[in-house]
Amino acid sequence: MTDTYRPDWVPEDAKKDDTYACHVMKGVKEMHDGLLSSSAHLAPSVRPVQRRKKLTVADYVRGIEQGDRVILSRAITLVESNNKDHFKLAQQVLQAVLPRTGKALRIGITGVPGAGKSTFIEAFGNMLIEAGYKVAVLAVDPTSQVTKGSILGDKTRMETLTKHPEAYIRPSPAGGTLGGVARKSRETMLLCEAAGYDIILVETVGVGQSEVTVRSMVDFFMLIVLTGAGDELQGIKKGVMELADAIVVNKADGDNLKRALIARSDYDRMLHYIRPATEKWKTQAYTCSAVTKDGLDELWDVIQEFAEQGKENGVFLKRRQEQSLRWVRDMIDEHLHNLFFNNVVIQGRMGEVEAAVLDGEMSESQAVEELIGVFDKSLK
Amino acid sequence: MTDTYRPDWVPEDAKKDDTYACHVMKGVKEMHDGLLSSSAHLAPSVRPVQRRKKLTVADYVRGIEQGDRVILSRAITLVESNNKDHFKLAQQVLQAVLPRTGKALRIGITGVPGAGKSTFIEAFGNMLIEAGYKVAVLAVDPTSQVTKGSILGDKTRMETLTKHPEAYIRPSPAGGTLGGVARKSRETMLLCEAAGYDIILVETVGVGQSEVTVRSMVDFFMLIVLTGAGDELQGIKKGVMELADAIVVNKADGDNLKRALIARSDYDRMLHYIRPATEKWKTQAYTCSAVTKDGLDELWDVIQEFAEQGKENGVFLKRRQEQSLRWVRDMIDEHLHNLFFNNVVIQGRMGEVEAAVLDGEMSESQAVEELIGVFDKSLK
Repeated sequence: MTDTYRPDWVPEDAKKDDTYACHVMKGVKEMHDGLLSSSAHLAPSVRPVQRRKKLTVADYVRGIEQGDRVILSRAITLVESNNKDHFKLAQQVLQAVLPRTGKALRIGITGVPGAGKSTFIEAFGNMLIEAGYKVAVLAVDPTSQVTKGSILGDKTRMETLTKHPEAYIRPSPAGGTLGGVARKSRETMLLCEAAGYDIILVETVGVGQSEVTVRSMVDFFMLIVLTGAGDELQGIKKGVMELADAIVVNKADGDNLKRALIARSDYDRMLHYIRPATEKWKTQAYTCSAVTKDGLDELWDVIQEFAEQGKENGVFLKRRQEQSLRWVRDMIDEHLHNLFFNNVVIQGRMGEVEAAVLDGEMSESQAVEELIGVFDKSLK
Repeated sequence: MTDTYRPDWVPEDAKKDDTYACHVMKGVKEMHDGLLSSSAHLAPSVRPVQRRKKLTVADYVRGIEQGDRVILSRAITLVESNNKDHFKLAQQVLQAVLPRTGKALRIGITGVPGAGKSTFIEAFGNMLIEAGYKVAVLAVDPTSQVTKGSILGDKTRMETLTKHPEAYIRPSPAGGTLGGVARKSRETMLLCEAAGYDIILVETVGVGQSEVTVRSMVDFFMLIVLTGAGDELQGIKKGVMELADAIVVNKADGDNLKRALIARSDYDRMLHYIRPATEKWKTQAYTCSAVTKDGLDELWDVIQEFAEQGKENGVFLKRRQEQSLRWVRDMIDEHLHNLFFNNVVIQGRMGEVEAAVLDGEMSESQAVEELIGVFDKSLK
């Protein structure tokens, strides 16, 4: 097996050759064709590609419910496809598995590049699996144009986790709007839940609004930080600390331990000034080490306490319900926005109108009136 | 003169009787009729209401350019009206005065209730007027259902400023969506600029998203805070410190001075952890007193330095341009959102669909599909 080409953790339907990237973009059918046509170029050690049977909704549902990773991956690829037929099929599958969703604990993880998110996920994920859980790791990276998601980039740091049968790792859906990526990631999460994963870790690279998006799809959100408060903190984006249910000072080991403890108390002091992200929950800072595993157990206790407490006082369910309704409204807004701004006539007119606004020749309201008029006419 | 009924600073077209509130809501024509019919009930000391001449666009423009406060107020009432004809007329006026807009310095002011925003504005505004500026004070309060905006509520605290001929104070446009209030406030700001006001102070009561809205319409944004860091800070909303170009510890006088200085350094320490709101600008904390006037001059120096520096390095103009383009896009999104969610058929269906989502009978994407289908059909 040529591990370079086919790491175990790359979804089954996407690990045949290095053109995987654009296949994911194109969707299932094209991928399938692409695989057929490109298989001739593959190294001999790659097993020959068989023409894949088209699955029915029932096939997908059965496969997912049995925890079949190949079928789960194919269902996720459907969810990620921009093809209308795939979308419809995906929605039918989703509808059928819906009763099996929602039971996992959803945990979001963010942090500046270099904070050690991947090593943390590797260590934390392995600990969870040892404790008997099935763990799915997803990523939300709207900047990922193809498959250069952080998880893929960091695969070497998740070496043991990726090989584990109880772990399922899926890179970020490729590119597109944040709203599109968010929809795909949420539905991927639901599919993983239906496939029996108990804990979903959703990583975000922290670009643009992606933390807010991930916060809006998880129960518990943690910020991984480096040791040494102060200047390093400048790298943390505005408002991100306010989203966190826990701040985790990573790399609290060896020579770094003392600094990590100082950072922890610095963060605790800062948190005093910030309103917690979750009602009735006190956000605090913790230390841990992906190397020595110190602090990982404690962190898991904190998360479990968070979930138990929230389920008792109603905050947990309330947030999930608010998230659901918010998703619906956000998706509608996104749909309307795209309908307007992707309209060819609007695109043709926009530059001119914006220039008139910037030159002070047109007020903003007039620009809006003008563009809405153009849009209405284009629909007739 | 019965000052209770007719404080000088209430806009001319709205100070005839205590039904002012709903008049503003109804717009110019209704107000006019209302004034006629209600004038009989007024106290004898109120001067008789004359039937107001309908103004042409040219009348408005001339009046505004001459700095006529009565006509300015009437133009603002047009801008605030939800009547379509008024909107059109307002836009014509706005278009005509557009070349005279944009020259003022726009300063946003927020702070928790009780932080002393009104006393600060009174003292700061008077200082600016003494320095030779014309000052307009506006408010953005989306919760203001009628005219219970904070400025009106706090009028007694702005007693000297409201009587000053070089000051123009306008309460928040009444109720409605934040987007609607934002549009009205922005256009009011433009009208004030065209009328020759050099400095526009925009106060927000800090409810919901109103700080973000005000930040999006001003050049400089300041947060007024109380002395004593720590627990008081919990009252400051998430993310608001990140919007500020200056934090002003108010009431730095008498027994409170020492505490104010401590608070100032506490805030400065916190600001170290926060990315500044404006490129190339270091947000810092300052103290001032509306009673002793200490610190007001210094703060004005800071704001002037901010403007000069920003004009030199291009940040000032860049922000204004981004704000303009953002306004256009936000207004379009708002328009589309309202078109959808105010649609009668959608409103009739929404509850059912949301219930199905919450009951786990329908995925969020299916809910969206369903509602968009209903919407499309309703348009045909």
